[in-house]
Amino acid sequence: MLTGLIRIGLRSVNISTRLICYSSKASALPMDELKAAAAQQGAIVRKLKESKASADELAAAISELKIRKLALSNAEKAIAATKKPTVDRAKFENLMKRRFFYGAAFSLYGGVAGLYDLGPAGCALKANMVNFWRNHFVVEENMLEVECTMLMPATVLKASGHVERFSDIMVKDAKTGDCYRADHLLEAHLEKALEGKKVTDEKKEEMGAVLRQIDSFGLNELGELIKKYGCKAPVTNNDLTDPSEFNLMFGTSIGPSGLVKGFMRPETAQGIFVNYKRLLEYNQDKIPFAGAQIGQSFRNEISPRSGLLRVREFCQAEIEHFLDPLDKSHPKFKNVKDVKIKFYTCEAQMAGTDMQHITVGEALEKGVLENETMGYFIARIHQYLSEVGIPDENLRFRQHLAKEMAHYAADCWDAECKTTYGWVEIVGCADRSCFDLNAHAKATSTKLVAKQTLDTPVTREVVEVALNKAAVGKGFKKEAGGVTAAIHNMEDEDKLKMKEQLQSDNFKLVVGDKSYEITPAMVTSISTVSKTEHVREFVPSVVEPSFGIGRILYCILECNFKVRENDDKRTWLNLPPLIAPTKCSVLPLSNSPEFIPYVEDLSAALRKLGIPNKVEDSSGSIGRRYARTDELGIPFGITIDFDTMKEQSVTVRDRNSCSQIRVPVSDTPDLINKLCTEQMTWGVAKEKYPEFIGQESNN
Amino acid sequence: MLTGLIRIGLRSVNISTRLICYSSKASALPMDELKAAAAQQGAIVRKLKESKASADELAAAISELKIRKLALSNAEKAIAATKKPTVDRAKFENLMKRRFFYGAAFSLYGGVAGLYDLGPAGCALKANMVNFWRNHFVVEENMLEVECTMLMPATVLKASGHVERFSDIMVKDAKTGDCYRADHLLEAHLEKALEGKKVTDEKKEEMGAVLRQIDSFGLNELGELIKKYGCKAPVTNNDLTDPSEFNLMFGTSIGPSGLVKGFMRPETAQGIFVNYKRLLEYNQDKIPFAGAQIGQSFRNEISPRSGLLRVREFCQAEIEHFLDPLDKSHPKFKNVKDVKIKFYTCEAQMAGTDMQHITVGEALEKGVLENETMGYFIARIHQYLSEVGIPDENLRFRQHLAKEMAHYAADCWDAECKTTYGWVEIVGCADRSCFDLNAHAKATSTKLVAKQTLDTPVTREVVEVALNKAAVGKGFKKEAGGVTAAIHNMEDEDKLKMKEQLQSDNFKLVVGDKSYEITPAMVTSISTVSKTEHVREFVPSVVEPSFGIGRILYCILECNFKVRENDDKRTWLNLPPLIAPTKCSVLPLSNSPEFIPYVEDLSAALRKLGIPNKVEDSSGSIGRRYARTDELGIPFGITIDFDTMKEQSVTVRDRNSCSQIRVPVSDTPDLINKLCTEQMTWGVAKEKYPEFIGQESNN
Repeated sequence: MLTGLIRIGLRSVNISTRLICYSSKASALPMDELKAAAAQQGAIVRKLKESKASADELAAAISELKIRKLALSNAEKAIAATKKPTVDRAKFENLMKRRFFYGAAFSLYGGVAGLYDLGPAGCALKANMVNFWRNHFVVEENMLEVECTMLMPATVLKASGHVERFSDIMVKDAKTGDCYRADHLLEAHLEKALEGKKVTDEKKEEMGAVLRQIDSFGLNELGELIKKYGCKAPVTNNDLTDPSEFNLMFGTSIGPSGLVKGFMRPETAQGIFVNYKRLLEYNQDKIPFAGAQIGQSFRNEISPRSGLLRVREFCQAEIEHFLDPLDKSHPKFKNVKDVKIKFYTCEAQMAGTDMQHITVGEALEKGVLENETMGYFIARIHQYLSEVGIPDENLRFRQHLAKEMAHYAADCWDAECKTTYGWVEIVGCADRSCFDLNAHAKATSTKLVAKQTLDTPVTREVVEVALNKAAVGKGFKKEAGGVTAAIHNMEDEDKLKMKEQLQSDNFKLVVGDKSYEITPAMVTSISTVSKTEHVREFVPSVVEPSFGIGRILYCILECNFKVRENDDKRTWLNLPPLIAPTKCSVLPLSNSPEFIPYVEDLSAALRKLGIPNKVEDSSGSIGRRYARTDELGIPFGITIDFDTMKEQSVTVRDRNSCSQIRVPVSDTPDLINKLCTEQMTWGVAKEKYPEFIGQESNN
Repeated sequence: MLTGLIRIGLRSVNISTRLICYSSKASALPMDELKAAAAQQGAIVRKLKESKASADELAAAISELKIRKLALSNAEKAIAATKKPTVDRAKFENLMKRRFFYGAAFSLYGGVAGLYDLGPAGCALKANMVNFWRNHFVVEENMLEVECTMLMPATVLKASGHVERFSDIMVKDAKTGDCYRADHLLEAHLEKALEGKKVTDEKKEEMGAVLRQIDSFGLNELGELIKKYGCKAPVTNNDLTDPSEFNLMFGTSIGPSGLVKGFMRPETAQGIFVNYKRLLEYNQDKIPFAGAQIGQSFRNEISPRSGLLRVREFCQAEIEHFLDPLDKSHPKFKNVKDVKIKFYTCEAQMAGTDMQHITVGEALEKGVLENETMGYFIARIHQYLSEVGIPDENLRFRQHLAKEMAHYAADCWDAECKTTYGWVEIVGCADRSCFDLNAHAKATSTKLVAKQTLDTPVTREVVEVALNKAAVGKGFKKEAGGVTAAIHNMEDEDKLKMKEQLQSDNFKLVVGDKSYEITPAMVTSISTVSKTEHVREFVPSVVEPSFGIGRILYCILECNFKVRENDDKRTWLNLPPLIAPTKCSVLPLSNSPEFIPYVEDLSAALRKLGIPNKVEDSSGSIGRRYARTDELGIPFGITIDFDTMKEQSVTVRDRNSCSQIRVPVSDTPDLINKLCTEQMTWGVAKEKYPEFIGQESNN
């Protein structure tokens, strides 16, 4: 993920919810009035168009129409939301903490904001997610995975723009010095102000407009808005300082001298870009190909909140798909064209209309998507998220608004998941230019290009520089080679500028941190010549799917948090077997020693098949223990009871339905394996083996 | 890994090689003279013992005997070494670089010492190693895996001793300011000096003694030795500055205020310790249990060298097995007692005798190992290393010398692998005390203990403090609860000290960074009372296996680097299928389009079975392409040729033997799966299918 994505990126719960929230009338009017108001205004706009009214008049009417449509859509959604049971977050967080899926890091020492540890269940869940990611993307698509260091020298991050631009805007409590993100503070302030009863409709509209653009304000604008709306420090109500930029990278120094400035990487992407040449070579100079990387990144958030959704250290899985900017087709697009996805286009967001639930193929035909490669990755991302347990109804792909998009991006779509925090970005997929390769090429005077053999040679004008080798050698000694290469790698335009400059003076050549004085004597000639090329050389474009593994993990857990209908204290997790931390539990009915050999043998047999399982032999009734395994999201359970010794059979229980079947001991490991790998459904298993009724109700 | 291991730990190529290297006579005398000299001295020692000679006389004779034995053993090993083909490191490194197993990080920018990136093959190898580690340890032993943050606040690392003690001793070039590790510089200087022809035997002996203790010198000692032996800066030959301590942690600050000092973790272990309470609770308060963690750690090495063996960022996999210090038995010891291992005891190293190749059971009986739990883990570590491809002959377990061992450790064994850099520590296994839990308990005034219900209650004297709640509440307000807990958690001894102090003055209670004035009015009484306890409370001991994943990865690659007998340009990697980055290649005989459907179908069928495979359709003869896949260590290859279309059969080739068989297309994916998972050997496959002779020689 690149510098321009900084203010949006994976870090920000996105703004689209706001677009359909702040309308002056939404909460006040009943549905039928809202519908009538929208229809009425629609008719006015049509009339104005027919009567060829002035542009200003028409624009004003359309603006009002949009507001009315937004209000309607907002009200509709509010009604839809009340119909669906929502997750009780307190209950959910209690389970997460109690069974140590994750917890605040260093809580023994009072904790550190924005740092979380994963416990055993969270860890296994993450490992399963990452392994499946590697299979789904790296293995399936023959991507070139790398593992680069998290420590990065400052020079690299200067080139990529992070040193200068990877920042958020901060304000401080003028008295206590506590730090806050300026946009978050203003946002919370305005949201609260909007709830006030004395606020006029006009004022509401104005504040709504500010909120809609909250991600796009610069330093000065934010400062003015904070003053204008009288925004104060939370808790203390003290004045706020003027806003300042705060770079989000964790700085350090590398080596004992203290002179080599470094940072913890803010994204994994840069490691792939700086390895581009090696990877192209590894791929035998063929393009397209994709680099991939999974690993931690670090961002020194000003005031982290929203639990696992905004943290200072997080796991990313990023793909940089390098392709010819003139050919964005994808050979495997046909395999995914029928995948159905909810697309929430930029236009729909602006117009307040709904998302489109269509296939990727249709999206390409309709122009919703610009090219096959983008479509292919969106479909593959969707498949991944579905498989790991994000329900379709909680998932949409939202296109970035023009203002929101980085300047180099041609298109950008975020996979968003609906949570108790609103719609949360969990994967970004950007169709990007050659920004990073160009930046690193420039900083290092190295060509980072790909080559294509041309069927017909092409003749074009190029600027060539002839150097006086002796003079260059004498002038720069050891560095003469580097300087020579840098001159030859200059853009034609810059070579001509140098020519002009050298007529009167020396030319200052800047390479990275250094600069070199080129004297007229060093240059023999600079001339434009015709060149016939048999090979086309180009800087590849990049399509980048970027996954926030921690956010996806949170969304999986929250989306699959359930409460048993008959007992609201019995919470459980509907995790798919593919990613469930433990696939199967083994439960002796009691602590009777005769059960032990069966427990040990079954557990070992499951392990031999690579099925992580948990012996649940704690005290408590079998019902209570089933409930404990349900809390960990364990899909299946095997119970050994007194009949096991008599008949060599056990009970197998399905977490989701709580139904049980009686299975011969010898069949059990294979059955569990089939159920976990989806070679067999529970329904089929129930047909094959007799149902068992009894133990569950013993609690 | 703990603070006391700092100077040895995973970072240091260990010293044991030196013990058998520096003897005054080893290189000068032929074998039979060395043998005679040792036997002669042996006889002298026996006689002295019989004649009850003085202790001094006997000690001198034994010392000489040891030296002669060392010289003999050294000469024997030198001969043994010449008999075995050794790895050509330049050739090996060429392959690593050329096929991008790993490479210097940021080489585009000139590189940063001690930082390496893994390429596609290195990445897949590491992922396979880590997955197998997780299966072999976490899943198989029901360990509780955690993933803690790499960013750690300074308070935690102060408590663990890292802020104060995690350092190496550094000297600088007095003119250029270049930094060096003092011990490494002295070591290299003395090693070179020993090669001098004019050095007297006496001097050699003296320098040998210094080298043997090189890891144990403090700041001042190193400074004096550097002066004494005239050690200068490398390259420049300038004087060196006085040595100073250099802390190896990368510092940073957490949060926007800049006030919260933090570090990148120097080891994963501390994350487990600070989560001890949660993990004990997760394990339903039962002990023993093990925490485990896999992840990056960071050490700002002064002057990294030895490639992947000494880096500034590396992957650790650590286990902290918490157990009752009074019961170090292990229920599964019986499963491993027959595992045969080379034990190189402390005594053998001191006496210059050989290692013992015995079973773990025998080692326990003989007292080589102190307890079952240590034996169990050593055996399991050995199994892991064997399975991932470290040959038995390159592997030994070396016990730490008394001087080398951390003060809290009862015993410590390192798994060492023989490489072109000498014997290299790749796993450490320490039987440790309760050092860390005590340290964190003290720093946070929290009990970090386990409980055991006693069969017979025990009565003992304890010191109890009765507080005046009102006075404490008034004195400390919000903090009163913490202060009260801290007082009750004090050791009995400290409570009595407080009692004495309070008779004349206030008592200063120190908790972490803070201190509190306890006045006499706050304390009602401090008295010794008899208490009957039904539960025994204890701080668990810890056995810690600590893996350096990067070092193991390097050793796997180096140990399995091979050259074809008939062609020394054909290098290949004998990687076991379990961890080979790619399990199988699919090769069309030529770029004829009719092969494509077969290639695609076979590749897809393999992927469906979870077998990572690589289509090798680059230009070049089939023989050259086989060679390319051999370089990546791909165990099996499938070739599609013109007969494939006629007979629906393909050639399957075995990397190690280069032999080929002809197999029906439909059998192929299952056959490869069986070969890769060791359900079938190549020998059995060769019996089942006809041999094929032809393509290999086409290059």
